[in-house]
Amino acid sequence: MATLEQLAKHVGGEISGIGDDPSSLNIDQVATLDDAQEGQIAFLFDRKYRKFLKITRASAVVLREQDREACPVPVIVTNDPYLAYAKIASFLNKPAETSGSVHPSAVIHEDSKVDFTADIAANTVIEKDVVIGANVLIGPGCVIAEGSVIGDYSRLVANVNICHHISIGKRTLIHPGAVIGSDGFGLARDGGNWVKIPQIGSVSIGDDVEIGANTTIDRGAIKDTIIENGVKLDNQVQVAHNVRIGENSALAGCVGIAGSAIIGKRCMLGGGVGIAGHLEIADDVTITGMSMVTKSIKEAGTYSSGWSVREARAWRRTVARVHRLDSIKKAEE
Amino acid sequence: MATLEQLAKHVGGEISGIGDDPSSLNIDQVATLDDAQEGQIAFLFDRKYRKFLKITRASAVVLREQDREACPVPVIVTNDPYLAYAKIASFLNKPAETSGSVHPSAVIHEDSKVDFTADIAANTVIEKDVVIGANVLIGPGCVIAEGSVIGDYSRLVANVNICHHISIGKRTLIHPGAVIGSDGFGLARDGGNWVKIPQIGSVSIGDDVEIGANTTIDRGAIKDTIIENGVKLDNQVQVAHNVRIGENSALAGCVGIAGSAIIGKRCMLGGGVGIAGHLEIADDVTITGMSMVTKSIKEAGTYSSGWSVREARAWRRTVARVHRLDSIKKAEE
Amino acid sequence: MATLEQLAKHVGGEISGIGDDPSSLNIDQVATLDDAQEGQIAFLFDRKYRKFLKITRASAVVLREQDREACPVPVIVTNDPYLAYAKIASFLNKPAETSGSVHPSAVIHEDSKVDFTADIAANTVIEKDVVIGANVLIGPGCVIAEGSVIGDYSRLVANVNICHHISIGKRTLIHPGAVIGSDGFGLARDGGNWVKIPQIGSVSIGDDVEIGANTTIDRGAIKDTIIENGVKLDNQVQVAHNVRIGENSALAGCVGIAGSAIIGKRCMLGGGVGIAGHLEIADDVTITGMSMVTKSIKEAGTYSSGWSVREARAWRRTVARVHRLDSIKKAEE
Repeated sequence: MATLEQLAKHVGGEISGIGDDPSSLNIDQVATLDDAQEGQIAFLFDRKYRKFLKITRASAVVLREQDREACPVPVIVTNDPYLAYAKIASFLNKPAETSGSVHPSAVIHEDSKVDFTADIAANTVIEKDVVIGANVLIGPGCVIAEGSVIGDYSRLVANVNICHHISIGKRTLIHPGAVIGSDGFGLARDGGNWVKIPQIGSVSIGDDVEIGANTTIDRGAIKDTIIENGVKLDNQVQVAHNVRIGENSALAGCVGIAGSAIIGKRCMLGGGVGIAGHLEIADDVTITGMSMVTKSIKEAGTYSSGWSVREARAWRRTVARVHRLDSIKKAEE
Repeated sequence: MATLEQLAKHVGGEISGIGDDPSSLNIDQVATLDDAQEGQIAFLFDRKYRKFLKITRASAVVLREQDREACPVPVIVTNDPYLAYAKIASFLNKPAETSGSVHPSAVIHEDSKVDFTADIAANTVIEKDVVIGANVLIGPGCVIAEGSVIGDYSRLVANVNICHHISIGKRTLIHPGAVIGSDGFGLARDGGNWVKIPQIGSVSIGDDVEIGANTTIDRGAIKDTIIENGVKLDNQVQVAHNVRIGENSALAGCVGIAGSAIIGKRCMLGGGVGIAGHLEIADDVTITGMSMVTKSIKEAGTYSSGWSVREARAWRRTVARVHRLDSIKKAEE
Repeated sequence: MATLEQLAKHVGGEISGIGDDPSSLNIDQVATLDDAQEGQIAFLFDRKYRKFLKITRASAVVLREQDREACPVPVIVTNDPYLAYAKIASFLNKPAETSGSVHPSAVIHEDSKVDFTADIAANTVIEKDVVIGANVLIGPGCVIAEGSVIGDYSRLVANVNICHHISIGKRTLIHPGAVIGSDGFGLARDGGNWVKIPQIGSVSIGDDVEIGANTTIDRGAIKDTIIENGVKLDNQVQVAHNVRIGENSALAGCVGIAGSAIIGKRCMLGGGVGIAGHLEIADDVTITGMSMVTKSIKEAGTYSSGWSVREARAWRRTVARVHRLDSIKKAEE
């Protein structure tokens, strides 16, 4: 719960409204323009929802200057309503504070250090020499293996696996089923057989990182796999050994990154993108969905290699014609 | 165990056989034509296995009219032997009934309601205000977080994660490692940093849904992510926030669907398909494997964008020729 | 800890060094050339790191004959320094031996057989009629369902799910979140609805297999899914029902294999590769990353269908020109 004035101040926006001063309006939740109820605040950042302005029952709307006149309810005017939405939603939906509760079914090794403010939920296992920081939340069914460190205010939602000797920064959020620190895929051929290469490196996760459900991050072969501060990984992302992901890069679902690839800062990788190993991607690179990167990218920009669907027979004709380019060429030779 | 007569009736097929009336034959399991033993029933729906008819040791075979004469053992004749296989296999392999047993190691919050007929296995955690319906099976190591509801006869095999305030319908089957209700990937840029958008929506899963191992379904940002009745999701499918999947659609392994995409009813998505966000796919659309959809599809039909492998040097030549189309064009300009 | 002589013998290499005989040097760990400290051994197999030879502080370096002269510290000369790295790293980093410890929080059914040398960690669940072999390690949070068998010296790191009646060979290593034996995706259409086909087959995993984090392997519909000896699966691999993967094949992250596909021996599948169902791939086939296989491959060799990224506008032009091949052709017709 907050007043409209508090929210406007929080996002650096300006209140305006017809009639009485709306500053003291009480707002308890965010909502969409079409669904909002009294006491809720809505947001207009996508033009296609502008039609809902006139029917909204929101107590207030956050929008840009140019939409102010069209809105029949009090507004907060800002240049970036989407960012305001993120900030206001966060303000109104703070994660519950920890209370220092440890569930009796949690199995905590006596040689680990759990800060007295941390919450440890049911059926979680904390092994030897683990350090759990202040205000950390470890949800149910997690396993924190020997020697790992979880920084202050980090939250592991449930069933998260932190393998041995992994370091997690502060305010990092890890969703269920994520695995941090499994062995990298290191193999050497010995005739027809494979010899496993022990993975003796670790994983270092920075501050303010978010790691999606069932995402996997392998430990390094010798040196560490590194996820820098502010990196955001969606669900089912696969990060191989010795990868480094630069600050504030965001990777959408199902991205796969092969061993020793280095991703720059503020990169954005679309869903299903694949990055080959042992290459380097510059800062501020965007890769569109389902593209494959097999060589280093040295300049910021947007890169693609995905094909969009066509009706299946049309697509088969396209494929056939592309393959015929070969035979034409051969005939000419 | 069932008689051949019971099975024929169950699938609406017609029994025939040489000599004695085979109706009272006892059948205890399904099998393949080549491996079947006495007491087992086999099925012929794929022409390439027709050669096994004459050597089969099955006690009976389900097949189409045109194959009846070629079969030396009693048969059930039906128009759709594959569907008959599904129905007979289900008839002979019913899931065990629940017995209302609650393992002493399960951690069940006192403010949750577990129907007295439900089974709760070892090391499962059920948080506050959860409702578990009649004849539900919650396997070992599951976490059902606060406020979630599991409908009658649903089964969570093991290590399933149901996050807070999720609704699961009746007779829904969820395989190990699935995560339902993790946060959507909602971020707003604030200069070089990301601000997380709290995901306050939920996930609503219908009746008769199947969710594969390690599949992830994110909760909605504001409104809910919706999986309608009869939807079947294979393993490692990723469903982002605010997606809606229509009734009886079936998604094969490794499909990824970005935020707010709407998939129609009775759609079929092949393995590894990627669907971009904020688009709509009509009913009865089939997308072949590893294709990418970036625009709405308004008509039923089959759509593709995948390339099949060629020998690597030939493929490299093809790629080079496609890229040369650019330079030819440029030279012409 | 080992002497240089022991290590040289272990890899069949030859020691040489300037001055005193280095055979008795003590080595306790592997390291990279640039980071190595005293007591560590480094390896030169990639030409681009040759520059670090002259600055290395490693106590010894493993390298090829041609690099011997350039190295200022004692060396082991071998034809395959990468294989030597695997062998020496394994020699110096043996997994801890099991001690026969069973954590009191583990839930073990009285009708299961756990060898007295096996370790069973906290909050693991072992159901009825399970057999756990000698020196097996079952980490925390695992679920081994009814009737499954785990061979000697196998290790399940943590939160591994072995469904019912699955067979795992010897010395097999399974990483967190892997699911072995979930139901295959078997469905038959009945008008607009799906009828589930019970999956009554099993999964048979051989000896010396490695299975990555969050990898899923479905049980067979009637017959079994089979992973032969020495197969290596990286993270987030999806193996559908009735697949067979031949000896010593290695599959990189995010590979997906549809039902009843047969992969030969010693195959290598790059990251994100997709294999359609009901086809056969010969021995010694390599598929490069993100390629799709839709037909059987009958000859050993390397196959591709992936596209690498270009700058996005250039890529869009390429796509447009490929589609124009259709209209040109049509115009000609």
